[in-house]
Amino acid sequence: MTALDDGRAGAADRVARSAGLGAEGVVSLPEFRAWFAAAATRARARVARVPLGGLDGWAADAATGDIRHESGRFFSVRGLDVRNPGGATEHWSQPIIDQPEIGVLGILVKEFDGVWHLLMQAKTEPGNVNGLQLSPTVQATRSNYTGVHRGRAVPYIEYFLDPPPERVVADSLQSEQGSWFLRKHNRNMVVEAPDEPVPVLEDFCWLTLGQVHALLAEDDVVNMDARTVLSCLPFHGGDPDAGARHSTTGVLSRITAARARTDIAAAPVPLASVQRWHRSGAGELHHESGRFFRVVGVDVATQGREVRRWSQPMIEPCGRGLTALLVKDIGGTPHALLHARTEPGFREGVELGPTLQCTPANYPDRAAHRPRFLDAVAGAAAGRVRFDTVQSEEGGRFYHARTRNVVLEVDDASAPDDDPDYVWLSLPQIDALLRHSHYLNIQARSLVACLRSRPAG
Amino acid sequence: MTALDDGRAGAADRVARSAGLGAEGVVSLPEFRAWFAAAATRARARVARVPLGGLDGWAADAATGDIRHESGRFFSVRGLDVRNPGGATEHWSQPIIDQPEIGVLGILVKEFDGVWHLLMQAKTEPGNVNGLQLSPTVQATRSNYTGVHRGRAVPYIEYFLDPPPERVVADSLQSEQGSWFLRKHNRNMVVEAPDEPVPVLEDFCWLTLGQVHALLAEDDVVNMDARTVLSCLPFHGGDPDAGARHSTTGVLSRITAARARTDIAAAPVPLASVQRWHRSGAGELHHESGRFFRVVGVDVATQGREVRRWSQPMIEPCGRGLTALLVKDIGGTPHALLHARTEPGFREGVELGPTLQCTPANYPDRAAHRPRFLDAVAGAAAGRVRFDTVQSEEGGRFYHARTRNVVLEVDDASAPDDDPDYVWLSLPQIDALLRHSHYLNIQARSLVACLRSRPAG
Repeated sequence: MTALDDGRAGAADRVARSAGLGAEGVVSLPEFRAWFAAAATRARARVARVPLGGLDGWAADAATGDIRHESGRFFSVRGLDVRNPGGATEHWSQPIIDQPEIGVLGILVKEFDGVWHLLMQAKTEPGNVNGLQLSPTVQATRSNYTGVHRGRAVPYIEYFLDPPPERVVADSLQSEQGSWFLRKHNRNMVVEAPDEPVPVLEDFCWLTLGQVHALLAEDDVVNMDARTVLSCLPFHGGDPDAGARHSTTGVLSRITAARARTDIAAAPVPLASVQRWHRSGAGELHHESGRFFRVVGVDVATQGREVRRWSQPMIEPCGRGLTALLVKDIGGTPHALLHARTEPGFREGVELGPTLQCTPANYPDRAAHRPRFLDAVAGAAAGRVRFDTVQSEEGGRFYHARTRNVVLEVDDASAPDDDPDYVWLSLPQIDALLRHSHYLNIQARSLVACLRSRPAG
Repeated sequence: MTALDDGRAGAADRVARSAGLGAEGVVSLPEFRAWFAAAATRARARVARVPLGGLDGWAADAATGDIRHESGRFFSVRGLDVRNPGGATEHWSQPIIDQPEIGVLGILVKEFDGVWHLLMQAKTEPGNVNGLQLSPTVQATRSNYTGVHRGRAVPYIEYFLDPPPERVVADSLQSEQGSWFLRKHNRNMVVEAPDEPVPVLEDFCWLTLGQVHALLAEDDVVNMDARTVLSCLPFHGGDPDAGARHSTTGVLSRITAARARTDIAAAPVPLASVQRWHRSGAGELHHESGRFFRVVGVDVATQGREVRRWSQPMIEPCGRGLTALLVKDIGGTPHALLHARTEPGFREGVELGPTLQCTPANYPDRAAHRPRFLDAVAGAAAGRVRFDTVQSEEGGRFYHARTRNVVLEVDDASAPDDDPDYVWLSLPQIDALLRHSHYLNIQARSLVACLRSRPAG
C-alpha cells in the first residue's frame, strides 16, 4: 500500500518505521557523506560583503528609503513601527523583510523496501557559514518557480503544485522568524510520490527519517527549511489528549487568551523613518546599541544554483541565538514546555515558541529582564541535556545566523506550572497543533524536529 | 457532573441534550416571549441618520480623511487598496472599518435539571431593523469592558476574562465580515458557569439550545454575535473523519492550496484616496455605481445600553444579502458544501464561506460573473429548502444589514465535486475546524448554526 488510504494513523506508522531505520536505507550514511562531499565540491560559491548602496539590481526608494529590487519582486527591506503596550519594550521601530508571496517548502517521500525515504537536497545558500546544507526536496519562493529569477526550473516542483489529496501527508502554512520577517509564512508540505519511479538528480538523495535524524545531531547540516517541514510530519495517530496534562480545548483557550491579551500593533513605515538605526561606514544598517541585527549586502557567485550571480540584502544577527525546550514526563507521558511569545512579524500576534528563545549576549549579567529559564539552560547538568546542536537559520535571507538548539530534561521542581504564558503540551498535542497554521513558531518547530530525533530512553 | 472533566465528547453529549429540549426549559417559549416583549419596551431607542460630517466626537483626519473618534479608540473608517491578480476585479480601493482590538463574544452555560442552558441577552443595537435582538451573554469590545466608553460595566464579563480551563467549552478567534472589516476577529467563547448560583439580570434569560434553535427559525431574532458563538459549540465528540468524503488532511491541504494560490494584497490607504467613492449631499460615502455599501452616520439615544447617547459611523449595505449552504448525504453521512473565498479583510486571504454568498441585486441578469449556485438557490423547490430565514448582521457596526440564510438539500447531479474551490465537509469535520481560528467565515458560521438547528429528517 502506498497511497494514504489508511489515514493519519497509517501515515504515523510509516513515519515511525522510517525513523527507526537510522543507518541503512537506499544509501548508507557513509555513502551519503561521500555524495554530500562531492556536492560541496560542485557547489563552489563565493560570497562577498558589499555596501547596501552597491547591490546590483537593488536600490533604496527615493521617498521611503525602502530597499527594493528593480523588478519589484523577491522581497524588500522596509521599516516597521511596533507598539506593544505592557511589553518589555512598549514602542520601537526596526527594519524588517517584507516578502508577501508564499513559497513552497516540500519533502517528497517514497517507499523503498516498505520504508518511507525522504528526497533531500544538497543546497548552497549564501548565508550558510558552511555553504552547503541539507534542504527539502523543494525550497522555492513563488518567484523561483514562476520564473521571475529567469533561472532554471525548480526540480520536483510538479509534485507539490497540485498533489492528489490522498498523497498529501502534511500541508500547512507556517510562520518564519517573527522578528525579521513581516507576516511571512511558507507552505510546508510532505507529499508521497506516485508509484512510478522518480528520477534522482545529481544534488538529491533518498534518506530514511532515521538517517535525517542522525544528521540533525551534527552542527549546521540539516537546514532550517528541512527542519520546519520535518516538524510537520505526523508522528502520532491516536487521541492527542490521552495522557496529556491539559485538554486540547484548554490549550487552545490558553493560546486564544494570550492572543486576546496581547495588544501589539505593527505597521509598516518608511525604512528611512526607523529610529536609532544608522547606515555604517561599511554601508550596513545597524542599531545604535550594536544589538539585534544588521542589514548587510552580499554579492554571490555560485555554480550549483538556479542563477549564477546575484546580489541581495541579508539580515545578519548580532550574536548566536539560544533556544531550548524543557521536557519531562507527566504521568508517564512525555511533555514539552512551550512559551506564548509575541513577535512583531507574527500574523496572529502570538505563537508558541520554545521554553527559551533569546540571544544570550544581550544579557551579560543577571540584571532585570533576563529571560526565564536562561540560567537553567546555561547551567544544566550534561546528563540532563538530551540534544545540543548548533543549527543555521534560513541561509537565503540570514547571513551566518546560527542558533544553539537544546532539549533539556527537567523535574517538576525546576519547571513549575505557574505562568499562563507557559504551557506543557504532550507530544501528540504538538503533532495535532502542527496540522494547523501559526501555532508553533519556527524556533519551536525546529526544536520539535530535534526532540523527535532523540527519543527518550 | 458539571466541570468538563469528561472532555469534548462529554461536552458534545451535553450540547445534544440541550438541543433536544426545544419547548420547556427554565422558562417556556411563551414566557420567553413575554420577557422579550418587556425588554423591547424598556429598550426604547431612537436612531437618527446624520451626515458623517456632523457626528459628535468623530472627525475626518485632516491629512488622510480617515474618520476617527476624538479619543483615538473604538474604531476608524479608513481606505483599503486591494490587488487580487486573477480575481474577478484585479484592483480596487474601498472604505473599511479598522478596529484592531479583540472583543469578547461569550455565552455562559449552566446545568439546570441536568440540561445545559445558555444565558442569552436582550440587546438593542442601532443598526438592527427591529432594535432588540437576542445576543450572547457578553458582547463587548475591549473598549467596552476596559471602560473607554465611560459607561456601565459589562455584566458577566468576569466569567470570560480568566476562566478555569476545565470550564471552557469553546474559545477561539473568529473573523468577521471580510469585505467590511480590516483583519477583524473576536474571541468566541462558551464557558460553563461555576456551581454557585448566577444572578440573572433583567435583560438576561436562561434558554436551552433547543429553544434558541426554535428562535433561529424566526427572522431577525438571534443576532449575528449569538450565531457565531453558537457555531463554535461542540456537536460531535468522535473521529471527524468517520464517513467523511475527504480526509481532514486532504481538506486542510485544499485550504492551504487555496491560500497559497491567492495573491491578494490589501494595504490601508488614506480614506481620501479611495477611487470611485464620493461624499453625497446627505453626507454619506457611496460608490459611484450605487452598489456595495454606504458609510453613513447615526445619532443614537437609548435607555437600555451602557451609554445613553452617542454618535457613530456605520456601514449600510446596498441590497439584501443571500447566503446558502448546499447539503447532502454522502454514504449516509450529512455533508455541507463550503467555498474557499477571498475577502480583502481576511487575515489569511482565504476562508471557507458558504456555498453561495452574494447580493443578488448586483446580478440582475444572467450575464457573466453571475455567482455559481445562485440560480440553483433562487429556483429551489420548496420541498428541498430545509432552512430559510432572514438574519441581521452585527447591529453595532452595520445599519439595516440583512441576509437571507438558506440551507438547501441537493442531490449528486446538482452539486458535483468538480472545482477545487468547493469542498464537501462532513458536519463533524466542520465542528473540528471551528475549534481553530479563521477556517470558516462569519457567513458560513451563521449558516452552520442554522443548519444544526434543523437536523435532517
